[in-house]
Amino acid sequence: MNQDTATPGSVRPGGRTARVRDSVLRAAGDLLAERGFATLDLAEVAARAEVGKTTVYRRWRTPAGLVADLLAEMAETSLPHSDTGSLRGDLLDNARLVGKTLTDTRQGRLFRAVIAAATSDDTAAAALRGFYDTRLAEWSPCVEAAVARGEVPAGTDPRAVLSAVSAPLYYRLLVSGDPVDEAAIAAAARAAAIAAEQGVFVSGATPSA
Amino acid sequence: MNQDTATPGSVRPGGRTARVRDSVLRAAGDLLAERGFATLDLAEVAARAEVGKTTVYRRWRTPAGLVADLLAEMAETSLPHSDTGSLRGDLLDNARLVGKTLTDTRQGRLFRAVIAAATSDDTAAAALRGFYDTRLAEWSPCVEAAVARGEVPAGTDPRAVLSAVSAPLYYRLLVSGDPVDEAAIAAAARAAAIAAEQGVFVSGATPSA
Repeated sequence: MNQDTATPGSVRPGGRTARVRDSVLRAAGDLLAERGFATLDLAEVAARAEVGKTTVYRRWRTPAGLVADLLAEMAETSLPHSDTGSLRGDLLDNARLVGKTLTDTRQGRLFRAVIAAATSDDTAAAALRGFYDTRLAEWSPCVEAAVARGEVPAGTDPRAVLSAVSAPLYYRLLVSGDPVDEAAIAAAARAAAIAAEQGVFVSGATPSA
Repeated sequence: MNQDTATPGSVRPGGRTARVRDSVLRAAGDLLAERGFATLDLAEVAARAEVGKTTVYRRWRTPAGLVADLLAEMAETSLPHSDTGSLRGDLLDNARLVGKTLTDTRQGRLFRAVIAAATSDDTAAAALRGFYDTRLAEWSPCVEAAVARGEVPAGTDPRAVLSAVSAPLYYRLLVSGDPVDEAAIAAAARAAAIAAEQGVFVSGATPSA
């Protein structure tokens, strides 16, 4: 998916190069979580990672290139999708995964920093979309299985269902400030599942109130 | 209604003072929409508004104080809530209002700037919460009326229902990059209404998948 496109830093060879990438991404993630995107500086990342400045500039080019690779790495290490046997169970697991990411001190801060950057930087925005495209591709089979089991109508759009699970949790983190707790996680999963069962997310459906 | 608390700049007298406020907030909104929050500068706002620098510093104190007052003004001028006679109709109107705000070139940029600021600035975050608290208070009677009409169960939480309408639209704007179009607006309203009808947003309900 998008982490395999030619975004700077997205090549992932093994050995020493892989260790350099690990160090650089760890340092970049720490700095992002500590101080946000606006002050992210490639020379400082190189110093903290104990890697040559030239290597970092050549391989990641810009702060946005670093963010893109950081999100690609997070997408790669995402848990595999659930297979609980029901859409409601799978969506609850998905909501818990999203909730865990957003409430984790380091990852939550990192996401806030990347989302803030994405509001004004096209490369950061593209990196964020790439992360979601990867995660959506990983979890889409849960919705396809629910269609096959007859739990939701044929033509139900996996992207719409999974976005409906994530959206209320991001809204709490970024906008309303309400807590991302277990009740919110369960309600997000349940609301999305019920709406999907009622055919709200059938693609091309004529929307009606 | 948080816009009536003692946030800098929240006093709203009439006459010349009101005209000064209008000019300053218009200039601040323009600068935010053009360049974001990070570079918002009180002296530049004063110059563009053709208002004395001292007045701006004394009354709004900080960039975050300006953002707080700008959001208070937007909340004040929000449309009154709908009364279509059904929850589905009212939520569709609410979704259209949110969609209109987010897709308006100037207001959409302004919101992105404020949300970006809120990820790292507590005063901007408080201003954003205040805006939503005001809008939620304005629209809550729609949900209360739906309870009275028996469309949704007693104990349904208006804040949860209205957040469920907004969340997918903000998620598109900030995270997935999917368009905030009429189909997305209708689906957001319909999914929230259906989940509310099924009791997902009854406060204190034991969440279950």
